[in-house]
Amino acid sequence: MSYNLLKGKKGIIFGALNEMSIAWKVAELAVEEGAEIVLTNTPVSIRMGTIDELAKKCNAHVIAADATNPDDLEELYKKSMELLGGPVDFILHSIGMSPNVRKGNSYDELNYEYLKKTLDVSAISFHKVIQKAKEMDVVAEWGSIVALTYAAAQRTMYEYNDMADAKAMLESIARSFGYIYGREKRVRVNTISQSPTMTTAGSGVKGFDKLIDFSERMSPLGNADAQECANYCITLFSDLTRKVTMQNLFHDGGFSNMGMSYRAMQQYNKSFDEKCDCK
Amino acid sequence: MSYNLLKGKKGIIFGALNEMSIAWKVAELAVEEGAEIVLTNTPVSIRMGTIDELAKKCNAHVIAADATNPDDLEELYKKSMELLGGPVDFILHSIGMSPNVRKGNSYDELNYEYLKKTLDVSAISFHKVIQKAKEMDVVAEWGSIVALTYAAAQRTMYEYNDMADAKAMLESIARSFGYIYGREKRVRVNTISQSPTMTTAGSGVKGFDKLIDFSERMSPLGNADAQECANYCITLFSDLTRKVTMQNLFHDGGFSNMGMSYRAMQQYNKSFDEKCDCK
Amino acid sequence: MSYNLLKGKKGIIFGALNEMSIAWKVAELAVEEGAEIVLTNTPVSIRMGTIDELAKKCNAHVIAADATNPDDLEELYKKSMELLGGPVDFILHSIGMSPNVRKGNSYDELNYEYLKKTLDVSAISFHKVIQKAKEMDVVAEWGSIVALTYAAAQRTMYEYNDMADAKAMLESIARSFGYIYGREKRVRVNTISQSPTMTTAGSGVKGFDKLIDFSERMSPLGNADAQECANYCITLFSDLTRKVTMQNLFHDGGFSNMGMSYRAMQQYNKSFDEKCDCK
Amino acid sequence: MSYNLLKGKKGIIFGALNEMSIAWKVAELAVEEGAEIVLTNTPVSIRMGTIDELAKKCNAHVIAADATNPDDLEELYKKSMELLGGPVDFILHSIGMSPNVRKGNSYDELNYEYLKKTLDVSAISFHKVIQKAKEMDVVAEWGSIVALTYAAAQRTMYEYNDMADAKAMLESIARSFGYIYGREKRVRVNTISQSPTMTTAGSGVKGFDKLIDFSERMSPLGNADAQECANYCITLFSDLTRKVTMQNLFHDGGFSNMGMSYRAMQQYNKSFDEKCDCK
Repeated sequence: MSYNLLKGKKGIIFGALNEMSIAWKVAELAVEEGAEIVLTNTPVSIRMGTIDELAKKCNAHVIAADATNPDDLEELYKKSMELLGGPVDFILHSIGMSPNVRKGNSYDELNYEYLKKTLDVSAISFHKVIQKAKEMDVVAEWGSIVALTYAAAQRTMYEYNDMADAKAMLESIARSFGYIYGREKRVRVNTISQSPTMTTAGSGVKGFDKLIDFSERMSPLGNADAQECANYCITLFSDLTRKVTMQNLFHDGGFSNMGMSYRAMQQYNKSFDEKCDCK
Repeated sequence: MSYNLLKGKKGIIFGALNEMSIAWKVAELAVEEGAEIVLTNTPVSIRMGTIDELAKKCNAHVIAADATNPDDLEELYKKSMELLGGPVDFILHSIGMSPNVRKGNSYDELNYEYLKKTLDVSAISFHKVIQKAKEMDVVAEWGSIVALTYAAAQRTMYEYNDMADAKAMLESIARSFGYIYGREKRVRVNTISQSPTMTTAGSGVKGFDKLIDFSERMSPLGNADAQECANYCITLFSDLTRKVTMQNLFHDGGFSNMGMSYRAMQQYNKSFDEKCDCK
Repeated sequence: MSYNLLKGKKGIIFGALNEMSIAWKVAELAVEEGAEIVLTNTPVSIRMGTIDELAKKCNAHVIAADATNPDDLEELYKKSMELLGGPVDFILHSIGMSPNVRKGNSYDELNYEYLKKTLDVSAISFHKVIQKAKEMDVVAEWGSIVALTYAAAQRTMYEYNDMADAKAMLESIARSFGYIYGREKRVRVNTISQSPTMTTAGSGVKGFDKLIDFSERMSPLGNADAQECANYCITLFSDLTRKVTMQNLFHDGGFSNMGMSYRAMQQYNKSFDEKCDCK
Repeated sequence: MSYNLLKGKKGIIFGALNEMSIAWKVAELAVEEGAEIVLTNTPVSIRMGTIDELAKKCNAHVIAADATNPDDLEELYKKSMELLGGPVDFILHSIGMSPNVRKGNSYDELNYEYLKKTLDVSAISFHKVIQKAKEMDVVAEWGSIVALTYAAAQRTMYEYNDMADAKAMLESIARSFGYIYGREKRVRVNTISQSPTMTTAGSGVKGFDKLIDFSERMSPLGNADAQECANYCITLFSDLTRKVTMQNLFHDGGFSNMGMSYRAMQQYNKSFDEKCDCK
């Protein structure tokens, strides 16, 4: 069942790796809702993942591009506008990676070359995506740009490491560029702060399953999954949210505004059970 | 053109006075999007306004009820469920009034009986609306409750007076009850923090036109109007935002995250122009 | 050892019940730091507690007053200025009580008469304390007014009930009145959001000890205790913080900006231990 | 007059250029309050400014170090501990610079090499300062680290450019490292978000004087100046604020929580005066 919320709209989606990816779900749903899209990812991710499968489903082209490289972006945008027959109405940025996390460097032993990479891939790429788009007039008036982020930008999660700082910067870029792009071209820029999600990226974080359990019990509606995130993205790409900009929007079943839930506390309290060794 | 976003859904809308009201626009759009609704307001507001006209347009019943009175709410919910043939999927709370503002009492000369009234009408009524709904099981699973609020809850606006404190409390109720209603019935509760809007209520605030001008120049996309607010409400009533709860969502063209815009600063700077007396 | 940070300053301290009270610790330290103070509480609290003991230690008078009663406040201020020989430099508001919590009414079964009482005692009293003070010119220029609050105003804590809404309103009053009192008399108004503290009031909240344990493990520096809170209050009463106003200041060992700590997660994970029944 | 608040304490102060610098005022006051300090800045800043004058006043050594260079920091810390006879109790980071701002590149035409420089100097340097300090155990237990920031990290100020993103990242680093350093060594890390201040750095921002005027009229207590910022820093270095960590503390006369003041609105309204050409 489709609402045709994106009928006649065009978009570019960065970051679909495989069917666990949020970007994958967004792409599928955008097309169901009437959009025509271009998919893009780095050459490595294209090889490692299964994006071609998605492209078939979505009747979309895949264009390889490294979002940290403005020349790649220029080529991507040029081809996209040719393929789609004009400027786009929405862009999804779902890109993040930390070599420090991958290599197991703790936050007090950061490798600064890696940190630069974390920032370049996970935050500055968002600026590059927008700056090049604005320069080439890639986004139509009243278009919508969304990036995915995580609550660690506001509140420290152990093991989330330098990605927290990158996400804080990403959210700042949404505000800074939301102002400029809004006043000049009526384009809105927002971030969605999504529940921890068991994607390929997420599953790389140590102890992620337990964090997901805690988050699930803390959130009155439970964690939001990738499909639900896609639903939410669609509303932000639609014409119904034209005056929402520069915002960081929590999509998390309520987690962000919880201090302590009954369910999480009950679980926590079991750890003190005197009848067992688990203390 | 309709997306049928609310096809098959039922709702109750509090607070439509006349065609300037945000609640009026929400009612119209909800029906266009496929919903069946009941309209409600206080007997006085029904007499003073033109809600019957709206009811005709929307093919809806009007049920008089004072949202500060749990007995009225009980009657309203009973009748609504009869008329609509079951529980509702969404509720809009668009209610606010301060006798201190009306009487011109400044914030450092509050009449405390009036303050109680401000709180009862503008904040506690939201709790009453939800508590009675939960008690009577008025909202279906995955239903959505929305109240309208204003940025003065976070940042002091001169002349907004005790309404600022009422709105802060209103937003807190959304969090507190969002937790309870979410965990028990999967019902979500959010507030929309809307741009200053020239409704009948808004136009009562002294110097409101100039504040609107400033807000317009500060916001990269300009102020959001009542129709746009209705658009946004619809997304929050739809099934696409099921995991958004306990949030205060700014719908304001970016105002909330602006410190100073070029346009507002330019206007401000004119006040220092040496060529004229306007300093 | 004293810094004489409050040498020559005068103050009024609301809410010391017994030696577990934060207000008690603030009173002691204020006097050690050179201040002359008046202590006040309701007649009931004076009878139930041991404030006279504190008065002796602090060489201070106790004046009975119900902070929800402007006439009582007028009398209190009149006497205080006589006893202290002039206007005061600081006021501490450490007052809060919810009949709904006491009676065990859950948040979705609030008694609205009790809610009014919660608001009147825990939030509106702060407005009354300030409004009467301003009216009678009780606070000297560059004076400092502080109220104590709790993180439940931002993030829902189960069992904290209608106190969360009261605290949200209290913090809003600090902003609203901070603006007015600041621009007119250079008086600053702030709230301190304190770690959960095992006072007589705190110990009434169900499961409070376990919440304190969680909070302790979440906070990198551990929970802040009553004595540390007194230390922090003193800095806010001193001349070193004259331009801090309208703020809610977290004094909580870092809790407010934590999403998940290693220590809390380790404890939580024990609850899943397979070797025992505690799952 | 001194309180001896920092009696026996030792500290390192980064970023004093000349007597307009906030760091300069902090250094002077820290010494007045009983601390022994080391001053540091880059070789270029030492040549361009007048830090030697400050060193004389403060009876302090100046050690040249580039805070973006871990080797320099290592040398700085080694010498500092020798000179001061042990670990330090506080560190001030007052460092920020954007080549994009200097060269007049607007935010939608950023030079990405310059952006890297902005981030390295204005944000990552804070991480380097802390990481190296922790590695070498430079900060004593219960020590305090403070960095200066600006409200543009939360709300976009036109012309503040990529410094907004750098400050957002800086504040995130304070949280991330505040967690780690707190749990392991009881060291607290905070940022102070200061009013716009007419330092040498500030005066380089276009239209800064008018922004200061607006900020002055918006803030009930007016802008905070450099000396007042020094006062506030001292409280954060003292033992009275031991449980304050991971916070961003606004020191701005109330600006951060103002939406619109009477004074700013009056000034703004003059720009519409019909009797003159200034519209």
